[in-house]
Amino acid sequence: MTRHTLTPERYYNTMGPHPPALRIAPGDTVVTTTVDSMGNDATGTPVTPKFNPMTGPFFVEGAEPGDTLVVHLDRLTPSRPTGISASVLAPNVVDPEFVRYLPERPLVVWDIDLARNEASLQVPVPGLEALRLLLEPMVGCFGVAPAQGQTISTVTSAEHGGNMDYRGFRAGATAYFPVFAPGALFFLGDGHAIQGDGEIVGTGIEISFEVEFTVDLRKGEQIGWPRGENEEYIFTAGNARPLDQALQHATTEMMRWLARDWKLDVVAASTLLGMCVEYEVGNVFDPAYTVICKLPRRVLQQIPT
Amino acid sequence: MTRHTLTPERYYNTMGPHPPALRIAPGDTVVTTTVDSMGNDATGTPVTPKFNPMTGPFFVEGAEPGDTLVVHLDRLTPSRPTGISASVLAPNVVDPEFVRYLPERPLVVWDIDLARNEASLQVPVPGLEALRLLLEPMVGCFGVAPAQGQTISTVTSAEHGGNMDYRGFRAGATAYFPVFAPGALFFLGDGHAIQGDGEIVGTGIEISFEVEFTVDLRKGEQIGWPRGENEEYIFTAGNARPLDQALQHATTEMMRWLARDWKLDVVAASTLLGMCVEYEVGNVFDPAYTVICKLPRRVLQQIPT
Amino acid sequence: MTRHTLTPERYYNTMGPHPPALRIAPGDTVVTTTVDSMGNDATGTPVTPKFNPMTGPFFVEGAEPGDTLVVHLDRLTPSRPTGISASVLAPNVVDPEFVRYLPERPLVVWDIDLARNEASLQVPVPGLEALRLLLEPMVGCFGVAPAQGQTISTVTSAEHGGNMDYRGFRAGATAYFPVFAPGALFFLGDGHAIQGDGEIVGTGIEISFEVEFTVDLRKGEQIGWPRGENEEYIFTAGNARPLDQALQHATTEMMRWLARDWKLDVVAASTLLGMCVEYEVGNVFDPAYTVICKLPRRVLQQIPT
Amino acid sequence: MTRHTLTPERYYNTMGPHPPALRIAPGDTVVTTTVDSMGNDATGTPVTPKFNPMTGPFFVEGAEPGDTLVVHLDRLTPSRPTGISASVLAPNVVDPEFVRYLPERPLVVWDIDLARNEASLQVPVPGLEALRLLLEPMVGCFGVAPAQGQTISTVTSAEHGGNMDYRGFRAGATAYFPVFAPGALFFLGDGHAIQGDGEIVGTGIEISFEVEFTVDLRKGEQIGWPRGENEEYIFTAGNARPLDQALQHATTEMMRWLARDWKLDVVAASTLLGMCVEYEVGNVFDPAYTVICKLPRRVLQQIPT
Repeated sequence: MTRHTLTPERYYNTMGPHPPALRIAPGDTVVTTTVDSMGNDATGTPVTPKFNPMTGPFFVEGAEPGDTLVVHLDRLTPSRPTGISASVLAPNVVDPEFVRYLPERPLVVWDIDLARNEASLQVPVPGLEALRLLLEPMVGCFGVAPAQGQTISTVTSAEHGGNMDYRGFRAGATAYFPVFAPGALFFLGDGHAIQGDGEIVGTGIEISFEVEFTVDLRKGEQIGWPRGENEEYIFTAGNARPLDQALQHATTEMMRWLARDWKLDVVAASTLLGMCVEYEVGNVFDPAYTVICKLPRRVLQQIPT
Repeated sequence: MTRHTLTPERYYNTMGPHPPALRIAPGDTVVTTTVDSMGNDATGTPVTPKFNPMTGPFFVEGAEPGDTLVVHLDRLTPSRPTGISASVLAPNVVDPEFVRYLPERPLVVWDIDLARNEASLQVPVPGLEALRLLLEPMVGCFGVAPAQGQTISTVTSAEHGGNMDYRGFRAGATAYFPVFAPGALFFLGDGHAIQGDGEIVGTGIEISFEVEFTVDLRKGEQIGWPRGENEEYIFTAGNARPLDQALQHATTEMMRWLARDWKLDVVAASTLLGMCVEYEVGNVFDPAYTVICKLPRRVLQQIPT
Repeated sequence: MTRHTLTPERYYNTMGPHPPALRIAPGDTVVTTTVDSMGNDATGTPVTPKFNPMTGPFFVEGAEPGDTLVVHLDRLTPSRPTGISASVLAPNVVDPEFVRYLPERPLVVWDIDLARNEASLQVPVPGLEALRLLLEPMVGCFGVAPAQGQTISTVTSAEHGGNMDYRGFRAGATAYFPVFAPGALFFLGDGHAIQGDGEIVGTGIEISFEVEFTVDLRKGEQIGWPRGENEEYIFTAGNARPLDQALQHATTEMMRWLARDWKLDVVAASTLLGMCVEYEVGNVFDPAYTVICKLPRRVLQQIPT
Repeated sequence: MTRHTLTPERYYNTMGPHPPALRIAPGDTVVTTTVDSMGNDATGTPVTPKFNPMTGPFFVEGAEPGDTLVVHLDRLTPSRPTGISASVLAPNVVDPEFVRYLPERPLVVWDIDLARNEASLQVPVPGLEALRLLLEPMVGCFGVAPAQGQTISTVTSAEHGGNMDYRGFRAGATAYFPVFAPGALFFLGDGHAIQGDGEIVGTGIEISFEVEFTVDLRKGEQIGWPRGENEEYIFTAGNARPLDQALQHATTEMMRWLARDWKLDVVAASTLLGMCVEYEVGNVFDPAYTVICKLPRRVLQQIPT
């Protein structure tokens, strides 16, 4: 149950079998920092190439392919007084005919007021002068080294996690990743102070973070896609295009979870999901989109385990 | 502001230029009933062919193509002590390889307890013996006569509405439909006592309803897709396949709404949606899927109108 | 075996249960004309509203739901010296980021030289001064009244046919349509002198036609999607979005055809298709896309029937 | 213009910055061998793990990111008397409801008769006893090291090529790949004696090959997606899901090609493609699908360059 502190010396724009930045054990906690998606640190200085440079990898002792890595997000704190976002919808989230009306995308700067827990535009966009948004810090991109020794860009996502941009990956949530490489090789970065569903302008409010997380390991428990849970929900993430396929992956993974941990057969799990499932949309900007399949704990508590 | 009561004499499995069941005026309220999606009435008797037979159409005086029909859902009350649902996931919502594990779909019967406001399985599925679900009555299918004099099946959806199966179309919500035909010709039916997102078993808890709704008209206001609002959100609905395209339709429609009613240009509306949009998934079972694009009122209240 | 001549008096922009323009019997041949997709006749005069106005419907005596209508395209002759096409790619067939580079779409005029069997631009586009294209007249839109009494716009397609824009629907080909309404109610129009795969500018060379076709009926033979054949291939058409689903429909329909008419079980039909199937792309412009699944006769001739 | 002979000592199941098997110069020819997709060599012996093990990489002297690698396929000769294929359609190419009818997939063995240039089933499937198919040897999977130092599995495809399974990559064709890594690092394998469009059973007739290819380099010519040409066509390949997006990539790449090499602006290129484009379907089995956008040389010859 060691508490480690890591000051990153380098960052990676891919997830793969890179040399570990730190070796940690199940139960350990790590306090570290992440740069923003453009490679700027807590002082706003560019220190590494864009996009989505990752802190890590963290080698988790004992993790082997076929295990599940558990990552509890203890704390996600924006570490700068300003964040950056894009300001025009991505061409792929509007009707193709509407793309003509999208101007070039200037970046806008947001003041981040941690004391008030809110963000406001530094130079207001007309109409948004009074806009004050509550901070909801989340991790845009995190995951492990992919299957088969692959090395995959952090601008996309797959079974190993990656750039899922799901708002639910916030402090207090626990994420689960399938382990494909010895040590799992956990990466994280791409912090957002705030982000709407889908990251439809291609960014959230991009900002550097202080992060604190605790890892654990489930030996011999194999999962197919990232999973997670928080106080209210358990959830699964499917990453693919189109959204239909991402939804298929997430739903199928939820069926497997209900079968293994709640012993529900296909009819029982279907009946339950049919009446109670909720879907959320993660990233719809990158090469792979993300759909989240959620089930409320208030329902699960009625199922014997 | 007349209050009409209609006892339907026939039902339609398509939306189109059918002869009106009732002529009403903007501001009028209608109290009527709907049969369940299988055509069974409040006594459980089959009275009309499945699927999704509609009550209506209601001819709204003064409605012309180019107007917007406003429908406020005043009350949706299940009118039977039992509802029916399917119990196996639809083949299109799971990974194709997983379809082999889906058995034939038996229907299950739910007891609907209006006093306790909950549903439970009449013959429990193993594991779900203790399951009690809160009722959340909603309209699965409603809308108007489609464009160009088309007559379209109520098992699908398009610009005119149809089988969107969005949980947010519940009592207290207001829906907006583009008017394509004289009188708008409003239809509704396919009540669900409860339904999970996506209607992924192909049904909610299908049940007959007593319904009460109030119509209004926005002359000369043209919208492209169904819209809605409730106490917390405004929202738009896109109906298409794949989900990606439904999301494009809904997002584009929201951009148009923000431009017209909040005077936000593309940069302002994009910035706002980029940080605050929420998506929900309606039907993912039918030929056309439904995506809902939502914006919280708490954010909109910060925008001058 | 009557040979009918019909001079159309009106046209329809939807396929549905419209009053028959002519009643014909199986085996009969019809000689008639079609206007172009903009509603212009052989003199270039606008005579009916755009888009895709249909000649028909033809009521085929004895046709009942569950039968298959056979339509042999005997002759398709452009009936004007000029045709019209769009000149800019549709926004949905290029990468979303590329849409910004698409200018407004001017129409261009083509000279149609029947004697030389070729088309050339009347006012050459720079670079295309020398372009001479062989005529390949085809029917863009044809089909029957849809299922369930629906009336569906001729700018889309479904199980009943519609705007499939497949280049293979040319003279000499035979098309098969599922019959959904008494008399089948056959419509045709939207002639193209030439068209590339996908109709990716949203038009072919749009032109009025003289057409000659012969109908037949297969009583009690039910098909799920339009089929066709020519000297070299048998083929099926799937109409849906995305293309993936259109391909699924077409492939599944081919499996059914091979099962019924060649008695091939799933393994035999799969093995055959796996090594010999060919796909073509019909319309990728409209609400529903079209994929064609083809099997060469040279292969089928090796299968006992 | 050296002619190299390489006997592979190891194979890779990913494309990435692996140590070169051979260094060659632009203009050089390589004679080598490939194992089949299961890792079996010319004697049918398993020598390396499945799936799609690649021969290579070949380091091309002088190749730098931003260049284009040219690969002419001189000769592709099956090197075994038997090949293997699957015999049941992949679940993702049929309607979801039809998946239930797909049995487990046994492999079938094909006799490959090079003298007669044909394949036949060793143990005939009922109905296919007389089937004799002409050999059409093609490369299922080839390409270069991907962008950003990524290492990507050979069961998928992207901008760098990969498992495209396009029948047009046969002897006589020339392929073009964008160079992302120093030396380009060219890989090839996954030979098919015969394959239908889409590789819809998940395999072609999988077999080991003797291959001969010649490389060249276009310095400073940047392309976005794989391209190719043969005697009749030039073509581009888009790799993505859904097919709609693959088609967008391929079409956009063709627009860029016509702009650069034929100086056609958007209107001219659109007009030409609109009337003359042809699409083909590559792999529809893997995580990324492939669409080919083709333009006939007979048309291009009418455009001044």
